[in-house]
Amino acid sequence: MTRVLYPGSFDPVHNGHLELVETAAGLFDEVIVAAGRNPSKAPLFDLDEREAMLKESFAHLSNVRTTRFSTLVVHVAMDEQCDFIIKGLRAVSDFESELHMAHMNKAVSGVETLFVPSASSSSFIASKLIREIAQYGGDVSTMVPAPVAARLAERFPS
Amino acid sequence: MTRVLYPGSFDPVHNGHLELVETAAGLFDEVIVAAGRNPSKAPLFDLDEREAMLKESFAHLSNVRTTRFSTLVVHVAMDEQCDFIIKGLRAVSDFESELHMAHMNKAVSGVETLFVPSASSSSFIASKLIREIAQYGGDVSTMVPAPVAARLAERFPS
Amino acid sequence: MTRVLYPGSFDPVHNGHLELVETAAGLFDEVIVAAGRNPSKAPLFDLDEREAMLKESFAHLSNVRTTRFSTLVVHVAMDEQCDFIIKGLRAVSDFESELHMAHMNKAVSGVETLFVPSASSSSFIASKLIREIAQYGGDVSTMVPAPVAARLAERFPS
Amino acid sequence: MTRVLYPGSFDPVHNGHLELVETAAGLFDEVIVAAGRNPSKAPLFDLDEREAMLKESFAHLSNVRTTRFSTLVVHVAMDEQCDFIIKGLRAVSDFESELHMAHMNKAVSGVETLFVPSASSSSFIASKLIREIAQYGGDVSTMVPAPVAARLAERFPS
Amino acid sequence: MTRVLYPGSFDPVHNGHLELVETAAGLFDEVIVAAGRNPSKAPLFDLDEREAMLKESFAHLSNVRTTRFSTLVVHVAMDEQCDFIIKGLRAVSDFESELHMAHMNKAVSGVETLFVPSASSSSFIASKLIREIAQYGGDVSTMVPAPVAARLAERFPS
Amino acid sequence: MTRVLYPGSFDPVHNGHLELVETAAGLFDEVIVAAGRNPSKAPLFDLDEREAMLKESFAHLSNVRTTRFSTLVVHVAMDEQCDFIIKGLRAVSDFESELHMAHMNKAVSGVETLFVPSASSSSFIASKLIREIAQYGGDVSTMVPAPVAARLAERFPS
Repeated sequence: MTRVLYPGSFDPVHNGHLELVETAAGLFDEVIVAAGRNPSKAPLFDLDEREAMLKESFAHLSNVRTTRFSTLVVHVAMDEQCDFIIKGLRAVSDFESELHMAHMNKAVSGVETLFVPSASSSSFIASKLIREIAQYGGDVSTMVPAPVAARLAERFPS
Repeated sequence: MTRVLYPGSFDPVHNGHLELVETAAGLFDEVIVAAGRNPSKAPLFDLDEREAMLKESFAHLSNVRTTRFSTLVVHVAMDEQCDFIIKGLRAVSDFESELHMAHMNKAVSGVETLFVPSASSSSFIASKLIREIAQYGGDVSTMVPAPVAARLAERFPS
Repeated sequence: MTRVLYPGSFDPVHNGHLELVETAAGLFDEVIVAAGRNPSKAPLFDLDEREAMLKESFAHLSNVRTTRFSTLVVHVAMDEQCDFIIKGLRAVSDFESELHMAHMNKAVSGVETLFVPSASSSSFIASKLIREIAQYGGDVSTMVPAPVAARLAERFPS
Repeated sequence: MTRVLYPGSFDPVHNGHLELVETAAGLFDEVIVAAGRNPSKAPLFDLDEREAMLKESFAHLSNVRTTRFSTLVVHVAMDEQCDFIIKGLRAVSDFESELHMAHMNKAVSGVETLFVPSASSSSFIASKLIREIAQYGGDVSTMVPAPVAARLAERFPS
Repeated sequence: MTRVLYPGSFDPVHNGHLELVETAAGLFDEVIVAAGRNPSKAPLFDLDEREAMLKESFAHLSNVRTTRFSTLVVHVAMDEQCDFIIKGLRAVSDFESELHMAHMNKAVSGVETLFVPSASSSSFIASKLIREIAQYGGDVSTMVPAPVAARLAERFPS
Repeated sequence: MTRVLYPGSFDPVHNGHLELVETAAGLFDEVIVAAGRNPSKAPLFDLDEREAMLKESFAHLSNVRTTRFSTLVVHVAMDEQCDFIIKGLRAVSDFESELHMAHMNKAVSGVETLFVPSASSSSFIASKLIREIAQYGGDVSTMVPAPVAARLAERFPS
């Protein structure tokens, strides 16, 4: 059986992530989605909230498990006995930093990373833009799972 | 008649922006240039100063109006009854984030964004580099309108 | 009033082109779609067929006119008294060669080019891939207007 | 069990391909490497030779099978009951055309494509450059499997 | 003393090449500009004409020598005892194929390649676009040295 | 004789920098490696430590001198009478901001910048990723000079 790790900030998880996980859940036996602490950014949602939103958003997929981490991604992959890491590829600007990260991760641990192309209809969705739009009262409900829309509405009441 | 919105940080406005606005002023009936608050950066010039520099720099163009905003760009476009937004395209690294932003803006509001290529002779000018060079006493007067050069000299006396 | 020129090879026209023209037809008073002879490629459809497919595909848009050309794009823009040229922007690899072309066109004629982002749901559609897939019996009918699907079926009977 | 298809021109197969297949053979149960006819290029080696070089170069990997095809890649994937297609990712310029191809392939067949980053030490190797260098007597033997070096030496005797 | 090789197709040489050679002639003791046979393209000007245009265009630079080659670039660099190769960098799309070529060249010969950024005011000029525009009677005289403009006018009389 | 300046943050210096300096030391008479204060980032190592690591890492190269700076890079180049600046080119995402910086630097001072491609085997190494991995106890000793590995071990004891 093949178990893969899908790590990210997920601040918040959006429909682009959702489609990628649905694809991966169809290809592999088990998908572990893990929300990490991102040392260089002040998150909108704390790690508890981000993990809760992952759990709520992927509840319908029986071979998807959600978790959190506060260490290196490759340590999570090894601890969870994942065969490899998967990352989404949406744009050229994602591609190079992800490729360098993949090479570094392989060099320090031997863990491989494979890339899954984003569904084109959601390729423009980015957590950073969702945070900005929601903050000024824009409606992002078509771009995020329902539990995330609810939390954004709570955080930024109109 | 066609009215377009040209939003940006303009911290400070430079000759690349100037050339783009001159092009747009020749193509469309009215161009509104709007300086926005950028939530993720500590600006060099505050919004009052940035709006003042816009006003001074575009005084010679009768169909250009300058303003400021502290909400979503698409709200400004709708409030000002603009037909669409225009953005400059200078480099590949601009292109993808601008394209995602354009798709998000259309998804939340229906407002379109069109891209105007920067004049090649000014395509390397960037507000970020102007701030860095001016801060250490470098001469950027060939890259900014005269009113901006004056304010930079005042801010960073040699 | 604003009249714009949308030139291309259109070998064949596909849904990505269609969506772009629908957007442009909503923003501008008149859109001229012009199929050109492309000196460096052996086309699948000759210029007569490509122009016919344009005519059939845009028949529902009253402010869109279709034509053909076998000279420089900027000459067409000037002959047709267009205010500027529009091109689609789908990907980074389009972007740079289009930007160079736009600068060259402006340098030789003064004619400006503006860029319209492709709708994300059709951004992966490319005429080259349509030709390849249709040639081997793949079904591309969801990616092209009906008149084009009919001609492809005729050209490559299954 | 997971079976994947790795299609390409392989004109000729080189060490970058080799390293990718070794990685895939470690991650998946079966890897099918398939040399295709490339309609738009005059190959250096014909399909018989390319398939023979694949066979010789991957003989040491028991879960790798080599084949050839002259139809759409997605038809091969379906005929061989592969779970998905894998492609190498070496550079940004690969990335976008591969991403469009992946989206088109999924749209016409439902078959997914995953991307495997090239080992950084071989990321600069390209079949096109190997053909050019070998043709003028340059030594490419450190960049290709031994059976390929032998055939290049035969083709371009010094 | 430092001697560098600047190889290219130069079909035809244009003002972007000229500015790069002027920069290199100011930095290094000797610059050798070499026009090569490009196996994959049907040139507009044959090698005799291209070499003649180089000679005419760089006659004003005393430490620039022009030549031609029909072998590998690295062989020319070694035969002419050049310290390294220089190439222009104009755009992202140049960058990756040039980087791969540089790595391949170093791997087969030990010869290094350094990159010189194009002057921004000429960064959009490309030989391919010059050929296309000249062919249809467009005026490219501001983008090429006078001897090249003369030959283009002769080749494509208006 | 040719003297070149290689400026950077070097927080910390790694094997990619080392290979570039070894290349430059083979091509030019003197290489000055200068660690700068980076106004926009909180460094891991302060300027004293970064300069010390440079000195230790390049002690084996007799024509390499190390220093520090807290002004504009072009001022250092002029003060040290360098013929030009060299920068590494590793990836497309480096390329554009470096190209803009090079154009700005030339515009304000006349100082040129040349680009040296990174050795492909170290092209994925980035100081930012080294800091992240070392911070969580990952082993980066194969990617940095020994003196840097020692300081990282001291800073982040396991």
